[in-house]
Amino acid sequence: MLHGVPFVSVSRGDRIESIHAIAACAMTVDGEVLLAMGAIDEPVYLRSAAKPFIAAAVVRAGAAERFGLDDRDLAIMSASHNGEPDHVAAVRALLAKIGAQPADLQCGAHAPSYEPAALALAEPPTVLHNNCSGKHAGILALCRMLDAPFADYLEARHPAQRAILALCERVSDDRFGADRLGVDGCGIPVYATSLRHAARSFARLATLTELEPDDAAALARVRAAMIAEPFYVAGTGRFDTDLLRAGNGRIVCKAGAEGVHASALLDLGAGLVLKVVDGTRRAAAPAAIALLSQLGALDAMQVSALGSHASIAVTNVAGARVGTVAALGGN
Amino acid sequence: MLHGVPFVSVSRGDRIESIHAIAACAMTVDGEVLLAMGAIDEPVYLRSAAKPFIAAAVVRAGAAERFGLDDRDLAIMSASHNGEPDHVAAVRALLAKIGAQPADLQCGAHAPSYEPAALALAEPPTVLHNNCSGKHAGILALCRMLDAPFADYLEARHPAQRAILALCERVSDDRFGADRLGVDGCGIPVYATSLRHAARSFARLATLTELEPDDAAALARVRAAMIAEPFYVAGTGRFDTDLLRAGNGRIVCKAGAEGVHASALLDLGAGLVLKVVDGTRRAAAPAAIALLSQLGALDAMQVSALGSHASIAVTNVAGARVGTVAALGGN
Repeated sequence: MLHGVPFVSVSRGDRIESIHAIAACAMTVDGEVLLAMGAIDEPVYLRSAAKPFIAAAVVRAGAAERFGLDDRDLAIMSASHNGEPDHVAAVRALLAKIGAQPADLQCGAHAPSYEPAALALAEPPTVLHNNCSGKHAGILALCRMLDAPFADYLEARHPAQRAILALCERVSDDRFGADRLGVDGCGIPVYATSLRHAARSFARLATLTELEPDDAAALARVRAAMIAEPFYVAGTGRFDTDLLRAGNGRIVCKAGAEGVHASALLDLGAGLVLKVVDGTRRAAAPAAIALLSQLGALDAMQVSALGSHASIAVTNVAGARVGTVAALGGN
Repeated sequence: MLHGVPFVSVSRGDRIESIHAIAACAMTVDGEVLLAMGAIDEPVYLRSAAKPFIAAAVVRAGAAERFGLDDRDLAIMSASHNGEPDHVAAVRALLAKIGAQPADLQCGAHAPSYEPAALALAEPPTVLHNNCSGKHAGILALCRMLDAPFADYLEARHPAQRAILALCERVSDDRFGADRLGVDGCGIPVYATSLRHAARSFARLATLTELEPDDAAALARVRAAMIAEPFYVAGTGRFDTDLLRAGNGRIVCKAGAEGVHASALLDLGAGLVLKVVDGTRRAAAPAAIALLSQLGALDAMQVSALGSHASIAVTNVAGARVGTVAALGGN
């Protein structure tokens, strides 16, 4: 078993200015722990890293067939997107297919995560720009399949959320009672599961085994869509988009808020899930690349292609590089 | 000696989602350590927490007399301001007094830190909106006093920066060689000193003793200005402005980037300097309030007045409270 890189450092000049602790677990679908760092049995909210499973619940209910959803629709449903014009167009197209309106989305509006898109907006941002708008549109599709109202779709007791959480429980081998649920930034329920259980769920996404056949089929469809349309999973300059591309169809990955990052490793038949203990996003990609490299899921050329995410420039307001965010040490 | 609150937690629902470790030192001017947590002998960049000393170097050179600087001028020189219209006006007024132009400021432009001010801007933000613009204007005043050019004022070898660093060395009892210097977000040199030395420098700001008479007089002037004009040190809703107000002239405080917070405690004759180890800003105010309360520098009523900074709401996009940032435990 590897012991992994437990820290990501932030340097300024020649000196470490700040340091982030990392907890992580990698596990094969058979339950072999490949890597364990930190409190891997403590439940943590997966946040948006759960989106592939949320999208799978929509597919499992038959929404892909009924509404003719394509890879782009499923990728944007699984996305924490940048709010770039193509992302907004994709959410609009998805809403049109399911006969819903932007006004039906209860995610709230925030400025596009991609700064050039935010600066280019002539009007205030809308719900479509929310990085979770595709997921919310997917939940509306699930409401349609379940003949359930749109109005209260944010509630944990709503049939759509119950269907989503039930799938997440099955793939995680875990139970999400009230003590495991919180409210996400976009208003939907989020569940906490241990890094160990989360790693197992991503191992299953990697192998499509140890699953009910309908769950496996739905996850296969979502996985193929994320691999086919990586831009729609995140966007320009984003780590998930670049890692999906560098992975050449052999890594399926998703970040979550508060420093979560999860990957399904198809060649290893394993999942890797990490959490930056203090919740800071900047440390997640350097940590993920270091651990994926140690696990042998990324080779030197792939790591090199991801260089700007492995060693992130700290710049001053004038744009000069004054420091670096990077994994510290290793084993 | 107190052992302090070593962690700030971020909860979502009933569960801790992320956790920040705190390092801190409180020391009297006589060198008695009142509180020690973490690596207090490891140099850390003080970042903007050094601004009161930078402003003091400007005053010591005679700029306050020559240019007729008032409390507002000295407060904005010591500020990490919000970029609100009144802050921008204060920097303009300061520049006019010293015969300089906005174009002379090399801090770079960024959007106002105060979101309503950012949203209200009809034009792109300017250098005046940079939270450090008052400090840069102060450095220009120092250039005038030293008859030194504006063009290269960002360089560590420039006479203005040398005068600033010399004062910072004197108040810290420390030496800032090349291995202790980095470049700040606004382009000027930043120095790293241990929390122990930093606490001593803020203890001296509290007592105005153990200092050269000219340094003491300059620090007295800056301190009085920060106490008289707390809005100009930070701005609407900001912790430093509210702590200066709650402190009733008995606490002089300044935050720095990457989770630094420093206070001069006049009643205790002591300084408290803390660093959020991972550099996250959100943890600094809850940690500072918990430690100030333990030290007896804030009473229960003052802590209560600072409640929104001690227990910070985590909200979702729709504005609903879904969690809390707060100090964890204590002694």
